[in-house]
Amino acid sequence: MTSHWVRFRHGDSTGFGTLQGQRVRVCEGDMFGGAVPTDRLLPLADVQLLMPVRPGKVIALWNNFHALGEKLGLPIPAEPLYLIKSPNSYLDPGATIRNPPCGGKVVFEGELAIVIGKTCSQVAERDALAHVLGYTCANDVTHAEILNRDASFAQWVRAKGFDTFCPLGPAVATGLDPSQLVVKTTLNGQLRQDYPISDMRFSVQQLVSLISRDMTLYPGDIILCGTSIGVGSMKPGSTVEVEIAGIGKLGNRFE
Amino acid sequence: MTSHWVRFRHGDSTGFGTLQGQRVRVCEGDMFGGAVPTDRLLPLADVQLLMPVRPGKVIALWNNFHALGEKLGLPIPAEPLYLIKSPNSYLDPGATIRNPPCGGKVVFEGELAIVIGKTCSQVAERDALAHVLGYTCANDVTHAEILNRDASFAQWVRAKGFDTFCPLGPAVATGLDPSQLVVKTTLNGQLRQDYPISDMRFSVQQLVSLISRDMTLYPGDIILCGTSIGVGSMKPGSTVEVEIAGIGKLGNRFE
Repeated sequence: MTSHWVRFRHGDSTGFGTLQGQRVRVCEGDMFGGAVPTDRLLPLADVQLLMPVRPGKVIALWNNFHALGEKLGLPIPAEPLYLIKSPNSYLDPGATIRNPPCGGKVVFEGELAIVIGKTCSQVAERDALAHVLGYTCANDVTHAEILNRDASFAQWVRAKGFDTFCPLGPAVATGLDPSQLVVKTTLNGQLRQDYPISDMRFSVQQLVSLISRDMTLYPGDIILCGTSIGVGSMKPGSTVEVEIAGIGKLGNRFE
Repeated sequence: MTSHWVRFRHGDSTGFGTLQGQRVRVCEGDMFGGAVPTDRLLPLADVQLLMPVRPGKVIALWNNFHALGEKLGLPIPAEPLYLIKSPNSYLDPGATIRNPPCGGKVVFEGELAIVIGKTCSQVAERDALAHVLGYTCANDVTHAEILNRDASFAQWVRAKGFDTFCPLGPAVATGLDPSQLVVKTTLNGQLRQDYPISDMRFSVQQLVSLISRDMTLYPGDIILCGTSIGVGSMKPGSTVEVEIAGIGKLGNRFE
């Protein structure tokens, strides 16, 4: 069975719950264990959705799709290659991605986000999915010009770490088979990315298992699976939507 | 006037306060504004010191000292080059740095850590120090073999992000002139690093100002200033101490 966990602001308070059609079933307790549904149902129109979890860290993969790697002539990596998105980059669904004052080319990257559900370290591949709560959508926004302008040091963390450069949401969907998911990204309503998660070099199970050998993963931590073909630049005034059937649609304006 | 802020565990509770000789003056409220000293004084011997702040992010500089850059033949960077230390790497003073199960060469890097005191974004260089609470010691532990083993992607975040790879402490010292500080690192009691902060390519003021153009900095966020000559590998059983006169000594065993 699939649930869609959301966090929301309602008036002056925040809370969490599950989607039931056009309403939110408010819950109490802890999303990662012991959540208790209450009698309260709020119309979606009355709440503002927040990023569905508050990650302790967001790990972002590079060169994890065969199609994009082949197009760019990238070598096949022997292990997952990743960076960290800075916490100031996390952004709520519907909120505005802000163009940095320095200007320059800023690109969208629609991605699948794995949401960790249970603390794991050195977890075996066969046990990895038991440590995943579910999946959400992400836009791994990147300042394309900063990335390689210093020849001695690729500025991955900086280029991807500006304020508002990591929209997440709208919901964490549970009970899905990640290998069946498809990521679609539109720019101002035009389809720009449409790629299957089954094309990943490292599967969800492999990513969770291999990364947990380096770093303990905690509930709410996120792994962005990397992107594929169709990345493009955003002009101020653009709207980008990342949609994954079974999860939902994450929409953000760029200004 | 100089204060030394610490966080501590005492029995089952945690708290914060300031050092007064061999005792801790317990405070209530918020270290970053509105801290109120209480009548309570705890002997240092009765508490376990914790990392002095709980950072939202730890930014770590590369190639920020003239002496090390010249020794290694590195180009002079046009702007600060940095990565992020993963939160699972943060470690208390006195706690054990753990050798990852994968093995390989692990090195210490003694460093000055800037502790942000006030939220800042796009702050001018002349206003930067007003947003700094103070300074502490750090060991920017690094897995040297992972760093460059993939030719297409330098694995900075991963090599520096293993569990326990970021000891911090023992205290945040306020009221210091950072340009006068000297970092000394010993390995098993032998002096291995002894370098002045005045040799930095980018000063504390420049680092805070320039990084705040990219990322909003929040109270408790940390900037590691980078290291200089004398980095070396640790064998299991080693003890590394990073000492900065005016701040204190950060000691951690490696196992």
